[in-house]
Amino acid sequence: MRIVVLAGGIGGARFLRGLKSAAPAAEITVIGNTGDDIHLFGLKVCPDLDTVMYTLGGGINEDQGWGRADESFTLKEELAAYGVGPTWFGLGDRDFATHIVRTQMLAAGYPLSAVTEALCDRWQPGVRLLPMSDDRVETHVAVTENGERRVVHFQEYWVRLRASLAAEAVVPVGAEQAKPAPGVLEALASADVILLPPSNPVVSIGTILAVPGIREAVAGAAAPVVGLSPIVGGAPVRGMADKVLAAVGVESTAAAVARHYGADLLDGWLVDTADADAVAEVEAAGIACRAVPLMMTGTEATAAMAREALSLAEAAR
Amino acid sequence: MRIVVLAGGIGGARFLRGLKSAAPAAEITVIGNTGDDIHLFGLKVCPDLDTVMYTLGGGINEDQGWGRADESFTLKEELAAYGVGPTWFGLGDRDFATHIVRTQMLAAGYPLSAVTEALCDRWQPGVRLLPMSDDRVETHVAVTENGERRVVHFQEYWVRLRASLAAEAVVPVGAEQAKPAPGVLEALASADVILLPPSNPVVSIGTILAVPGIREAVAGAAAPVVGLSPIVGGAPVRGMADKVLAAVGVESTAAAVARHYGADLLDGWLVDTADADAVAEVEAAGIACRAVPLMMTGTEATAAMAREALSLAEAAR
Repeated sequence: MRIVVLAGGIGGARFLRGLKSAAPAAEITVIGNTGDDIHLFGLKVCPDLDTVMYTLGGGINEDQGWGRADESFTLKEELAAYGVGPTWFGLGDRDFATHIVRTQMLAAGYPLSAVTEALCDRWQPGVRLLPMSDDRVETHVAVTENGERRVVHFQEYWVRLRASLAAEAVVPVGAEQAKPAPGVLEALASADVILLPPSNPVVSIGTILAVPGIREAVAGAAAPVVGLSPIVGGAPVRGMADKVLAAVGVESTAAAVARHYGADLLDGWLVDTADADAVAEVEAAGIACRAVPLMMTGTEATAAMAREALSLAEAAR
Repeated sequence: MRIVVLAGGIGGARFLRGLKSAAPAAEITVIGNTGDDIHLFGLKVCPDLDTVMYTLGGGINEDQGWGRADESFTLKEELAAYGVGPTWFGLGDRDFATHIVRTQMLAAGYPLSAVTEALCDRWQPGVRLLPMSDDRVETHVAVTENGERRVVHFQEYWVRLRASLAAEAVVPVGAEQAKPAPGVLEALASADVILLPPSNPVVSIGTILAVPGIREAVAGAAAPVVGLSPIVGGAPVRGMADKVLAAVGVESTAAAVARHYGADLLDGWLVDTADADAVAEVEAAGIACRAVPLMMTGTEATAAMAREALSLAEAAR
């Protein structure tokens, strides 16, 4: 079975771990969000790709969900001693190695997809990890800080500002000119199932779908497309998805996110049992819907979610 | 008093510490060798400039003479885990920060001289540290390894091969096209004393002198020029200077190195008391010479050497 998953960072990575456990024989292709990529200290950092790679490769800091286990921050302290920032982004010594290798390969002319494959040679994530695009896409967020309207990089919004300001607009800069990375459209066309994990619908999956050709390939794929709600009981399970949903005029409810994706894209949608009353509303919008436990409390609970998603896909086929 | 010092790495840096102690009121300008600069992992590494900066700024690993004190090697291990080398060059986590800042500033368009000044803002070495040139110069060494003639970067010769092969030629690639960095010629022209510390006469001071205009500026300066022999009792005090002296056809003796620099360049030359019999030979070549203790066993011993050099300069004025 060929499964294609559109994934952001922590939520996507944890879901993938459950999916691998639920479908060990499946051939899984992950289309990773690169809209939150950022250049720091002259290095190319791809937070979402790395979170997937580290999580599936056994190198993740389990407690925080991003970054490396057993990490140290000597280099970051030294950069601060030189007065060189930003200091709000927590790059550890181990993590720096990934960015140095990536930057060196990109400078040598390799596309990000080839670089990602090379990095995965070490981590052996057990999935084929593709960046959504080899072209540069950077999600920017418009905010008003101290009375002044500014456009900040998504990471600055998310990490430095902790989404404490209203996101007035969310723009995946460069997306319109970006092309899907090699293999992305082919994977979608030949998929047996396409899954949207409970990643951020705006800045993770929304950004992937903003690359011309990808939304059309998902919507037009022969495979059923099933998503899992990142909103449970009217709030994001983790992260601050509600802040960026507001920016695109979408309520933070499981049903509203399903309608935001749309019946042209989704064949099925899983909501949490806490949102069972949303099932009728989602089905009324033309999307098959079931209420099942959606808290990724561990690999077994997450594997159960993946099995539910695959089951709904089977039913929607 | 304005003192200009042409310096390589460890020997130059240690001599400078003694000089600062011997002449605390002097305004010291250091013209640093950049011929051993190397790009590693996409980062610009300037070993000699950094050794001077760390040594005078209190950040050096005193035991080994290069690299940072209290250093760790997490990043290097991670790079090796990616299969990315070289592994023979020991970049530590603290040291990496310097190279990242430097590379980022160079990429932003700053010349190496401006970058060096910015790095020294942190270290406050108490001297004005100038790279010999803002242009790229890389010393290469011709060797025969396993029957095959190869040209290797000086660092590969020095660090990986530990100068175990004969240096058949030593070429400062790019030197002929290089220009002295801003301030270099001005410092030499307005110097009261010019000193050549016991740095490597071929790959450190020789490379600096190979930048068109610098040798002429040293030789033509109004200030007396005094050097200290890096060879004591027929062998280098530290390092493997004999290997590269052989490549340029110079015997490893205190007198031969003085003659190699030449009477057109040197006004005075200090040899160690072990080489007292070389004094007459050096003086016969037209260079004032004294035999004094030249072992840099500590700051006080080194300060005494510096005082001897300044005294000989005064006498040679």
